[in-house]
Amino acid sequence: MPEYRQDPLTRRMVIVSEERADRPHQFDITDRPFREICPFCEGNESQTPGETAAFRDADSEPNSPGWTVRVVPNKFPAVVPSDVPQVLHDYSFSRTYGRADGMGLHEVIIDTPRHVLSIADLTPSEVSAMLTMYRLRLQTLRTDPRWKFVQIFKNVGAAAGASLPHSHSQLIAMPFVPPSLMSMLMSGDKYVRDFERCLWCERLAIERQSGERIIEETEHFIALCPFVSRFAGEIEIYPKNHESGFDQVEPALLDELAAIFHRTIVRLEKAVFWMKDPLAYNVILNVAPFRSCRHKIEDDFLPSFHWHFSILPSLARAAGFEWGTGLHINPISSEKAAKHLREAI
Amino acid sequence: MPEYRQDPLTRRMVIVSEERADRPHQFDITDRPFREICPFCEGNESQTPGETAAFRDADSEPNSPGWTVRVVPNKFPAVVPSDVPQVLHDYSFSRTYGRADGMGLHEVIIDTPRHVLSIADLTPSEVSAMLTMYRLRLQTLRTDPRWKFVQIFKNVGAAAGASLPHSHSQLIAMPFVPPSLMSMLMSGDKYVRDFERCLWCERLAIERQSGERIIEETEHFIALCPFVSRFAGEIEIYPKNHESGFDQVEPALLDELAAIFHRTIVRLEKAVFWMKDPLAYNVILNVAPFRSCRHKIEDDFLPSFHWHFSILPSLARAAGFEWGTGLHINPISSEKAAKHLREAI
Repeated sequence: MPEYRQDPLTRRMVIVSEERADRPHQFDITDRPFREICPFCEGNESQTPGETAAFRDADSEPNSPGWTVRVVPNKFPAVVPSDVPQVLHDYSFSRTYGRADGMGLHEVIIDTPRHVLSIADLTPSEVSAMLTMYRLRLQTLRTDPRWKFVQIFKNVGAAAGASLPHSHSQLIAMPFVPPSLMSMLMSGDKYVRDFERCLWCERLAIERQSGERIIEETEHFIALCPFVSRFAGEIEIYPKNHESGFDQVEPALLDELAAIFHRTIVRLEKAVFWMKDPLAYNVILNVAPFRSCRHKIEDDFLPSFHWHFSILPSLARAAGFEWGTGLHINPISSEKAAKHLREAI
Repeated sequence: MPEYRQDPLTRRMVIVSEERADRPHQFDITDRPFREICPFCEGNESQTPGETAAFRDADSEPNSPGWTVRVVPNKFPAVVPSDVPQVLHDYSFSRTYGRADGMGLHEVIIDTPRHVLSIADLTPSEVSAMLTMYRLRLQTLRTDPRWKFVQIFKNVGAAAGASLPHSHSQLIAMPFVPPSLMSMLMSGDKYVRDFERCLWCERLAIERQSGERIIEETEHFIALCPFVSRFAGEIEIYPKNHESGFDQVEPALLDELAAIFHRTIVRLEKAVFWMKDPLAYNVILNVAPFRSCRHKIEDDFLPSFHWHFSILPSLARAAGFEWGTGLHINPISSEKAAKHLREAI
């Protein structure tokens, strides 16, 4: 059984998951996508655990060809399902250490039946289907009282931590809210109390006025390089209207979001004059928790959190200074990065 | 001029340092230490900026051969010296963003005149000289009122973020206390108030009782794998007696510390059956700040902080889940890692 461990001093939390050590590394250190058989390709459905959800042709059977997006349990899960409630205040905190069983859900969302690597290789309508599946999984998992928070993320390329070179996303549902999100919510709450406004909404207004960190705007979405960028070329994509959970996005807007998302990754890959080739990157979908000690399930609209995607190009790694201080040294200002990305297409 | 930027919502802080983008990368992605001339080797002193400090033969001239440890300004500094005070409360915080000039000191400590890569390749007496220089630099910088905190760290090997394959350490002095250290100090203070004891001292007592995470103990020091390890094989080395700053170590104990430090890295490199070869790692020297808004300069002994080294093997990188949630997934428990490391020599 995996295990959550927490240090009450640093609030640092980890998942110890020895099952993960058995994971095969198809990606060599040199990023060579050698493989015998790709478990994510159409026709190889038997290579994965049975599917949890899929968008598929009406006449197709589960775990057979005929799908566009497919969700399966991770074969080497970091956390495992259990019906024993593991909520934060149930942690067996001693004075010095905290621990709990590693209960959770770890799924893989296979973005496409085609063997392609990056979001840039997907068609905009494939990206839209992928986002629709993100939304659906969040909607479904929100109704399960075991989960307080769901992290959807994507590692693209070996340098970004991916072990398989077929475009996929991952989802981890957890019985608690990560400490870093919890403090962000507390700051967000305070901001709303002090200024009667979401800090992110206020920032978007400031960013749109200055324009220097904006990459692209569509009617409902905006892509920008955040003022406090940890990584060169770090990008965030926000809805212009205040929404705290990704499952609140209107389905009719997902095509528009998919288009700006796809273009943003194309821009990133084109801006190679200051970037490594092939480009590796992480995508993180930042959403409000479903519920927490302070926020009830009814609060599926939180005034203090504004969902957004973070896109982190893997151009440099965190090293001693970053791990020691938490401060990142970024050699490209977000203003310069945004200019490069604006001009890339 | 580099720039500190802070996000008051996440408390995330970064250094934007475009000068760093010009840094040459002697380390290729494949860790091939190709070089024409190593600027850190004895005889090549003219290749670095003029030295700040050195241990050298009595009859030798600065910036010439005849040294054992040499400190020079970083040629591509992340932060730059200035006499304009930049203290945290001087930050021009707006409601949404904070910034300040990137004032600081960025030095390189060349551990040895010999062209070797790792601490394991140094002799124990070279390690002792390196630690003596750490202590001396901290003692000297403590007297400069501009600096509130000094981070000493080491990146060994390309996978750990090093750009030069000659054993060296780095030092960054800053005019403020990093937010993560500030909250650790606040937790530490609370623990002292609640239990009249340093949390780390208490933990060391618990660890010595159980023994399962201990790698090695000497009379005054202890090497262990922390209960909450973010990385496989993460190690910490502590003084058994309570000390908050590394410049408080008795000079007579530095040989003993050097010996356990050196043996620990040798163990890490020998434990290759679950590690990559060549081993890359980061070393972080965690010390209390010199001063802060809450702690006066007189507080060079802080009851709420216990200095220690963190050693982080670069076996996996942080990926989407880690950057999103702050939680790390570690495939090796600290108990298992400690057992491997104990048995390695």
